[in-house]
Amino acid sequence: MKEINIGLLGCGTVGTGVAKILIENKNLISCRVGAVLNLRRVADIDLETDRGIQFDEGVLIDDAYQVVDDPEIDIILEMVGGEGIAKELILKAIDNGKPIVTANKALLANQGNEIFKAAAAKGVDLAFEASVGGCMPIIKSLRESLVANHIKSIAGILNGTCNYILSKSTDQGSSFEEALLEAQKNGYAEADPTLDVEGIDTAHKLAILTSLAYGMHINLNDIYIEGISKITPLDIELAKEFGYCIKLLAISKDMGSAIEARVHPTMIPFDNPLAVVSGPLNALTICGDAVGDMTLYGYGAGMMPTASAVVGDTVDIARNLMTGASGRVPLLSYQMDKIREIPVIPIDEISMHYYFRFAALDRPGVLSKIAGILGDNDISIQSVHQKGRQTKGSVPVVMLTHIAKEAAVKKALLDISELDIVGDRPVLIRIEDDNERC
Amino acid sequence: MKEINIGLLGCGTVGTGVAKILIENKNLISCRVGAVLNLRRVADIDLETDRGIQFDEGVLIDDAYQVVDDPEIDIILEMVGGEGIAKELILKAIDNGKPIVTANKALLANQGNEIFKAAAAKGVDLAFEASVGGCMPIIKSLRESLVANHIKSIAGILNGTCNYILSKSTDQGSSFEEALLEAQKNGYAEADPTLDVEGIDTAHKLAILTSLAYGMHINLNDIYIEGISKITPLDIELAKEFGYCIKLLAISKDMGSAIEARVHPTMIPFDNPLAVVSGPLNALTICGDAVGDMTLYGYGAGMMPTASAVVGDTVDIARNLMTGASGRVPLLSYQMDKIREIPVIPIDEISMHYYFRFAALDRPGVLSKIAGILGDNDISIQSVHQKGRQTKGSVPVVMLTHIAKEAAVKKALLDISELDIVGDRPVLIRIEDDNERC
Repeated sequence: MKEINIGLLGCGTVGTGVAKILIENKNLISCRVGAVLNLRRVADIDLETDRGIQFDEGVLIDDAYQVVDDPEIDIILEMVGGEGIAKELILKAIDNGKPIVTANKALLANQGNEIFKAAAAKGVDLAFEASVGGCMPIIKSLRESLVANHIKSIAGILNGTCNYILSKSTDQGSSFEEALLEAQKNGYAEADPTLDVEGIDTAHKLAILTSLAYGMHINLNDIYIEGISKITPLDIELAKEFGYCIKLLAISKDMGSAIEARVHPTMIPFDNPLAVVSGPLNALTICGDAVGDMTLYGYGAGMMPTASAVVGDTVDIARNLMTGASGRVPLLSYQMDKIREIPVIPIDEISMHYYFRFAALDRPGVLSKIAGILGDNDISIQSVHQKGRQTKGSVPVVMLTHIAKEAAVKKALLDISELDIVGDRPVLIRIEDDNERC
Repeated sequence: MKEINIGLLGCGTVGTGVAKILIENKNLISCRVGAVLNLRRVADIDLETDRGIQFDEGVLIDDAYQVVDDPEIDIILEMVGGEGIAKELILKAIDNGKPIVTANKALLANQGNEIFKAAAAKGVDLAFEASVGGCMPIIKSLRESLVANHIKSIAGILNGTCNYILSKSTDQGSSFEEALLEAQKNGYAEADPTLDVEGIDTAHKLAILTSLAYGMHINLNDIYIEGISKITPLDIELAKEFGYCIKLLAISKDMGSAIEARVHPTMIPFDNPLAVVSGPLNALTICGDAVGDMTLYGYGAGMMPTASAVVGDTVDIARNLMTGASGRVPLLSYQMDKIREIPVIPIDEISMHYYFRFAALDRPGVLSKIAGILGDNDISIQSVHQKGRQTKGSVPVVMLTHIAKEAAVKKALLDISELDIVGDRPVLIRIEDDNERC
């Protein structure tokens, strides 16, 4: 039976999972592929740690460049992470004509255009299913299964840390700080959680998906990003009373000649399939003109789910090598010469429904002053609820708006926050409801 | 740009959707594929109906054999349905060396082994994503994305008619007959609904998925099939009180040297992702040893979602033709010579949790008699609820069991039904709960 030689760069969490699958499920994989996927070399600077794997003599080495340059290696799996050495290794592999599998969303979101250009020029496959949504076939759906569809929108929960924290706050009323501590204790959050909780990791993934969905260059810089650190148990509880839960969503929409692309805490109705996604799970809804809404739901991170996606990609490439079909599916879903610059609409120009919470003094006339400023800014109110409970001498006044423009909302909230009858900063949470789904 | 010529056989609902996509999204598809997919011929016996499509002169003809024999046609889309002419046309296309896309689950479930054997012998691609779960990439997940995994189980809602009826009964307390009438009125059920409501259509789909999941020949005959016509609003309401909803599930599980494969009404906990699938939607959870549970959720039928899957398959095959990569992915997920006979465990030998409802006379000693017979048959009771409400002079006694064997359950229920203190036939509903999920 034909052998395909695999070189694995980086044997940390995901790399170890990949090695385990390639060794333990070797026979199963060959039954499906009709070739043996042979883990020929594993490069890692740490040669000492016991990974629970018995590598054959000479497989584990400390020089990744030796693997990339080895003429007997057919496919390179880049599991190093980061944007420095990982990029160098990928470009070297491309230069050597070797196809690559990577899970490196930060690298692809920030420097993907350069990397994909190099791979396309050399006719080398580059697969990256594991970079978004762990085990789920999201990239494959956009590049293959849904190829008949104009993609109208995507909306998803793409960061397990944030979803774990928001789930804890929802279920147990924990504050952000308490929930984060628990997430760290349970291994769902890093010691420095900034990339996750500030929405940056989610934005990396959205940048990649947006490119695939609409056939545009990867554009991270224009994505609006807002994290979850300011979400309070009070807002989660009030949202519940209106029939909404709060999730950190990655959203992009085709608006014709431009797109929306944004990451922020979002109120969604309980009957939205994304509302049931709890704990560290991920999910993504893709809306196409033919399929309507389709949702994928599963483990978005973790050793084995991510490794499953990496090995799936490896098999795809192995099948291309066996049939001489490299480049069979274009790297970014569209043929390279059809990929365009599509402008991203600035957040201030986007219109949607909003939730506001004001800490107002319990005094006659407060509501009319707030409503007056909103009216002056063309913001029409859908419902108002003044809650009895006092917090720090004020009562929460909650408003849901009809469709309003973000710029007008910001101006109105600034004016309202300057009233002496309103304490603290007003809270703003964006709403995506059924009417807005396609 | 290269042209790939498509021949469409059958222009009913799905065929019309396919034609619409190939015509309306032609430019989009060519941007992704790098070739023009040209709808060259459409064969249907009905040349008169206005399908809302303007075919070019000579495209719509009434002779399907002419299309299959046309040397200029590169890919055949079989949308005729049924097992007679459709099979003949597919075998003729294979004989002519033409790759085929079909959505014909009944044909594949009943005669797929013969068809796949013929296609493999000729080295011809045969794609069938649209045969299961409409728009969702279920076949692609099993054949490609999850190739690194031992599949441990699959469980899904694969028939929109049944799910619509059960949703109506759950939400509005409608009887089966009322809900069926409403489904027929709204176009979600056929005039003769037998294939759907008796679980046969679901079993067709399960037979295909089971073959792909475990690498076995298609085996419809050994699948246990039970439909939804005996599910009452009372049982749905009682299930709710225990924290369960009732869905018609297709279930298969790898039990080592044999598999379980069964279709029946099933009680699942409300926090199971399948519980939120309402109305005509479909969903499938695949459990793999690396990915854990992954769920796909979307439109399982309907003109455009099904057509989207057909065109997705067509593009896959077009990409194979362009790169000379036919046979790149094995037809049934495993290489043909690795596909085995795996025995299906008879339902009587399967063990699980059960829900029973007895219509018992409200008299002392009833419970002890029922419990005695269950105990005699090694069935241990997890909880008992005797409901106050009288229906036809009796009260419903509900029991949930610990794991019990189906054969013992049937024997016990037969003995209990012969007691003169128990009226009607006892109701049995199988339970899949969290503890049993992987």
